[in-house]
Amino acid sequence: MNQQIILAVDAMGGDNAPGAIVAGCVLALAEQPDIVIELYGAMDRVKPLLPAEAEAGGRLLMVDAPDVIDNTDSPVMAIRQKPKSSLVMALEAVKAGRAAAMVSAGSTGALLAGGLFRVGRIRGIERPALAVIIPGSLGPFVLTDCGSNVDCKPEYLAQFGQMGSVYAQKVLGVSNPRVALANIGAEAEKGNNLVKAAFELMGNQPYNFVGNIEARDIPAGAADVVVADGFVGNMILKHTEGMAATLMSMLKQEMMASARAKLGALLMKPGLRAFKKKMDYTEYGGAPLLGVNGVLIKAHGSSGDYAFKSAIGQAVRMARGGVVEAITEYCQQQEENHGI
Amino acid sequence: MNQQIILAVDAMGGDNAPGAIVAGCVLALAEQPDIVIELYGAMDRVKPLLPAEAEAGGRLLMVDAPDVIDNTDSPVMAIRQKPKSSLVMALEAVKAGRAAAMVSAGSTGALLAGGLFRVGRIRGIERPALAVIIPGSLGPFVLTDCGSNVDCKPEYLAQFGQMGSVYAQKVLGVSNPRVALANIGAEAEKGNNLVKAAFELMGNQPYNFVGNIEARDIPAGAADVVVADGFVGNMILKHTEGMAATLMSMLKQEMMASARAKLGALLMKPGLRAFKKKMDYTEYGGAPLLGVNGVLIKAHGSSGDYAFKSAIGQAVRMARGGVVEAITEYCQQQEENHGI
Repeated sequence: MNQQIILAVDAMGGDNAPGAIVAGCVLALAEQPDIVIELYGAMDRVKPLLPAEAEAGGRLLMVDAPDVIDNTDSPVMAIRQKPKSSLVMALEAVKAGRAAAMVSAGSTGALLAGGLFRVGRIRGIERPALAVIIPGSLGPFVLTDCGSNVDCKPEYLAQFGQMGSVYAQKVLGVSNPRVALANIGAEAEKGNNLVKAAFELMGNQPYNFVGNIEARDIPAGAADVVVADGFVGNMILKHTEGMAATLMSMLKQEMMASARAKLGALLMKPGLRAFKKKMDYTEYGGAPLLGVNGVLIKAHGSSGDYAFKSAIGQAVRMARGGVVEAITEYCQQQEENHGI
Repeated sequence: MNQQIILAVDAMGGDNAPGAIVAGCVLALAEQPDIVIELYGAMDRVKPLLPAEAEAGGRLLMVDAPDVIDNTDSPVMAIRQKPKSSLVMALEAVKAGRAAAMVSAGSTGALLAGGLFRVGRIRGIERPALAVIIPGSLGPFVLTDCGSNVDCKPEYLAQFGQMGSVYAQKVLGVSNPRVALANIGAEAEKGNNLVKAAFELMGNQPYNFVGNIEARDIPAGAADVVVADGFVGNMILKHTEGMAATLMSMLKQEMMASARAKLGALLMKPGLRAFKKKMDYTEYGGAPLLGVNGVLIKAHGSSGDYAFKSAIGQAVRMARGGVVEAITEYCQQQEENHGI
């Protein structure tokens, strides 16, 4: 059995909060005997949802967070002015070193701001980056940055490669992750000014840089880590969702086009369900903010209980895998190398 | 019957040239009684491929182009130093006003260089842009720029919107095309510096700007024209291809997973074929280079005869639709407005 760890959970963030969040925590606790969850939320709304045995079991601890962050608050203001909000309190539990990780399905902007201003960057990291695991036909891969830095310098991209490499190693279990730069051609001289400069830098990094990857080859999973600026990465991530939905809907139209096709679809139903499940990236949990001094996981805003449970699982794997420690070590090494 | 027009075709460009190009021309001539094709290529390689009736019919004219552009030539050098190449001769036929359009499946870079240096920009257009038509579940839409300008200024994007709007109107037959800006969020303040500035400009253009579109909503066809810089546009285009291929391959795995699924797949075969055909954007022809002073179509490099025939059809629709004339008119109006 592993050593027991504490996870801090923001009960108030997300479209289905707090109901799906509480239910997700209950599922996670049943699956993982060696975790304790500190659940931060508005007492009057969350307490009635808690199962009786949770209180008794002692592994789900409800903590009152009276401040409410709403959609009209700017992320930075909310983080500064609402210290007793569920998000900030959960972040502070990580900052204090008590919680090994925190999970929130709330606004990405607030989590980014909170990560920077409450938890802080790892020394040497220029910009933290969101990473997401996407299923491909050859296997899952990491895409980073998928939305936190929309205007990037080449140096940021080079660091995203390192953080993504550590993450793929520790969480996906890939021994020497192939890190590729998302580009419009395979050749070194291709791309816009940003990626051309990033390409140069990435060739001199300690990770396994395999060069450019074209968008055509991204979905299959031809690389273990795909590096992009936050604008391009977010486009790829959301385009993946959109393409999957559009193709499923076009396929359904064809399935209903004739009696013959309908029968065929009926027979294929289990296969189609398995296919849909494979395509569902909520299976892979949430998106960590890499480069901050703690494990911070952004769960999908529309997370149901199952997706939120997956995000908690992700947080546990990251904490136990020592992702933050490995990134810190890389930064220290970089600093020493430059010091010589 | 329409007035007869001449199309200039580069017989030497593309992975399957000249065989598939000649075959594509023959298919196009059979379909369209009111076109004449000037076919530019190396006499010794192309002439043996011509059908006997083509010579007799007089609508397929072979013109010898002795210079050969190969992969080692830089696009700009090739265009300057090989005036008797099939590409340059076809471009010159457009420039001279004899041909109403030209089609090539050769290198994109060479076509872009040729478009700029041999045919020239429409007065007032800052940067010509490649446009492509992509099938969506709600209908086809135009994506522009899909690869010619990897580093853009906001002004370029605003013009891409206008050119895309004209193209959607004249070629897809949409009466008041909804032009949207590819972005990472729907709100006006979202995005990187480039798209934030472009958003401002696009609101003051004469076309129907509907705001930002998230990548999630692009594949369905929620807008008629999607505007992006050439880097992002190329990522979206190639990611569309890659997602379609990956999803089909994952679906096939499920289809072969059990006897039941295999039977289902067999029954659904016609439907799956129709689905694949819908997803096949070669159906929609090639990608025009909008903003140059003539109809220039880049056919897919891997075009077979059918895809090349579609690209010729595209060229005919663009020429007859008066796309170049409409863009020219817009530029004149812009100039007059600024003159006031």
